[in-house]
Amino acid sequence: MLEFKVVKKDTRTKARAGSIQTNHGTIKTPVFMPVGTRGSVKAVEQRELLEINAPIILGNTYHLFQRPGVDVLQKLGGLHSFISWPRPILTDSGGFQILSLSELRKLSPEGVEFRSHIDGSYYFFTPEKIIKVERQIGADIIMALDECAPYPAEKDYVSKSVELTHNWAMRCKDEFSKSKPLYNYNQYLFGIVQGGTYLDLRERSARQLVEADFDGYAIGGLAVGEPVEEMYKVADFVTNILSENKPRYLMGVGTPENLLEAVERGVDMFDCVMPTRNGRNAQLFTSIGAINIKNAVHKFDESSIDQNCDCYACKNFSKAYIRHLFNVNEIFGLQLASLHNLRFFISLMEQTRLAILDGRFVEFKTEVLSKMNSKKKEEI
Amino acid sequence: MLEFKVVKKDTRTKARAGSIQTNHGTIKTPVFMPVGTRGSVKAVEQRELLEINAPIILGNTYHLFQRPGVDVLQKLGGLHSFISWPRPILTDSGGFQILSLSELRKLSPEGVEFRSHIDGSYYFFTPEKIIKVERQIGADIIMALDECAPYPAEKDYVSKSVELTHNWAMRCKDEFSKSKPLYNYNQYLFGIVQGGTYLDLRERSARQLVEADFDGYAIGGLAVGEPVEEMYKVADFVTNILSENKPRYLMGVGTPENLLEAVERGVDMFDCVMPTRNGRNAQLFTSIGAINIKNAVHKFDESSIDQNCDCYACKNFSKAYIRHLFNVNEIFGLQLASLHNLRFFISLMEQTRLAILDGRFVEFKTEVLSKMNSKKKEEI
Repeated sequence: MLEFKVVKKDTRTKARAGSIQTNHGTIKTPVFMPVGTRGSVKAVEQRELLEINAPIILGNTYHLFQRPGVDVLQKLGGLHSFISWPRPILTDSGGFQILSLSELRKLSPEGVEFRSHIDGSYYFFTPEKIIKVERQIGADIIMALDECAPYPAEKDYVSKSVELTHNWAMRCKDEFSKSKPLYNYNQYLFGIVQGGTYLDLRERSARQLVEADFDGYAIGGLAVGEPVEEMYKVADFVTNILSENKPRYLMGVGTPENLLEAVERGVDMFDCVMPTRNGRNAQLFTSIGAINIKNAVHKFDESSIDQNCDCYACKNFSKAYIRHLFNVNEIFGLQLASLHNLRFFISLMEQTRLAILDGRFVEFKTEVLSKMNSKKKEEI
Repeated sequence: MLEFKVVKKDTRTKARAGSIQTNHGTIKTPVFMPVGTRGSVKAVEQRELLEINAPIILGNTYHLFQRPGVDVLQKLGGLHSFISWPRPILTDSGGFQILSLSELRKLSPEGVEFRSHIDGSYYFFTPEKIIKVERQIGADIIMALDECAPYPAEKDYVSKSVELTHNWAMRCKDEFSKSKPLYNYNQYLFGIVQGGTYLDLRERSARQLVEADFDGYAIGGLAVGEPVEEMYKVADFVTNILSENKPRYLMGVGTPENLLEAVERGVDMFDCVMPTRNGRNAQLFTSIGAINIKNAVHKFDESSIDQNCDCYACKNFSKAYIRHLFNVNEIFGLQLASLHNLRFFISLMEQTRLAILDGRFVEFKTEVLSKMNSKKKEEI
């Protein structure tokens, strides 16, 4: 069973500081996890992820299964060894990608049939198969296969989806219990709460998973188009049901503000492509709001992206230089933007944890958001 | 006057080991100079250039003049400061780019009219203007404006081109003498020998430049399509005329083999986009020949690109992983390939220098080329 310790609970909110112990090291929570879908966090080197103190990164089962393929991963000793990453890894089950990327997908109680978005190859993924693949990939934390319902969706559809997801979760757990890690370290299985924005469905999903006793719980099916207040409401509702002594992971979320609001509602773990994807599109996050580095206002700007940031980009380069790199399409611009944005998200969670430990989470959150919103409108 | 010292001359060939002293540090020759056309060596970080021991990098006057523009460069304290690069920089005059990239170019004895390849803006560059711009950019070593004749070209055309190039060189030198560096370090001016593959024209060009006494001499107009043996013949011929006590720079060359052959013929400095450009196209240089990392043969290969290489890519990653990165179009693949290839070229010149110092250049060259060619055919 995954060792998770709540180190400190905020007295005024549900925010908590914790630590997750894996064979690849400790993950201090709340934590932001950079996304390395295909075995690389886009435009960022593994040694740079260590430098900016990424405690854990993500991989994606659907993508890695197709390329490089589990034969390659097994031959090379699993994903950690393949990509030379010494710290923990979490793999999403790929349920979301199968449903959003693949063609001709067909869901049945047994599993999901689909054709690869790469070459059209036919696959049939069952919960058992997904666990087998996640064993071959070898992440420390692996996710059960789920169906992520779209938003909006009829209650009837979502209800059936929750039932399917729960059955799949139980079959994943069963397969997980019957199988062993392929490499010399432990793996842990998280269940995923679904139910869209229907609180009674969320309740059913969460209670069933808690009863089954997973190593941790994810809240899935959010950040898929619903209003942000709905997202907060669901997260808040679900964390009331989830076990206190298990980590809670809000999948695919989100903006710095989303992260702080969700931490307040008792969430411990986050992942999002936003820092890297938006970075590659010239949006840089700063403590006084996001900026578009291509804007003419930065043409002669000798200052760093964020004077409070300790990343390589901020310690060495001016906004004027980074703007130039984007203007002339230099890859180095993508590298610096991605590195900085990731450091910003990771640092935000580091500072949030310190604030929780110091009993000043509410004040910290208010101050950060007020500073961040002061410049936001004018710049983005 | 540029301080250049020939430390050791090979007794059996014209190869020599030297050192060039600039205010940004010493450049040990023979040297390979990575190309950072627009203020970035593509996909490689400045700290990585230090790590792989790049002694000097290139910038391009034509490109930097257009973007970010000399106003930005001056405001930010010159190119070194703008890109945070502590070691020497050399700027090509942009003559080659004006002729190859720009539209509606019109050459006259006075200078060259052209329209920007970016936005169609009209410019008129004179030798005096080029020196002014190179002062504003602030490289340690700057090149005179030249006309690079195409290959093949009629002798009559090349003869006139040599005359034009010489007049421009003299005007560059004059302007250079009358002006001062804008930043707090010295700059040095190199003249460029032209003349195509016509040895008598090459002789005229070289003698005139030597007489004018530049800080160093480049051999231009080669590697533009002529047979490689012609290139070697011209380089060999020209170095016989150039002053012994000045550095010699063969522009835009070349393959590892080209470099060794040119060192043997008395060349000290090289630049080429090959390591980075070919790297981005999946070609990796190794001591046993170049490989295409996308080839299926590397799919399960746990070994590093080159077991003799000390770069980050070779110390941490397998061919299988780098192949995967290229297959899924991850930027990190471009980064690792560029870094490795540059280290390969730089290391080759470092080893060449040691061999010259040890009096074993001929043996070294024979061994390197024989090893490199052993696998070449089968792999590329």
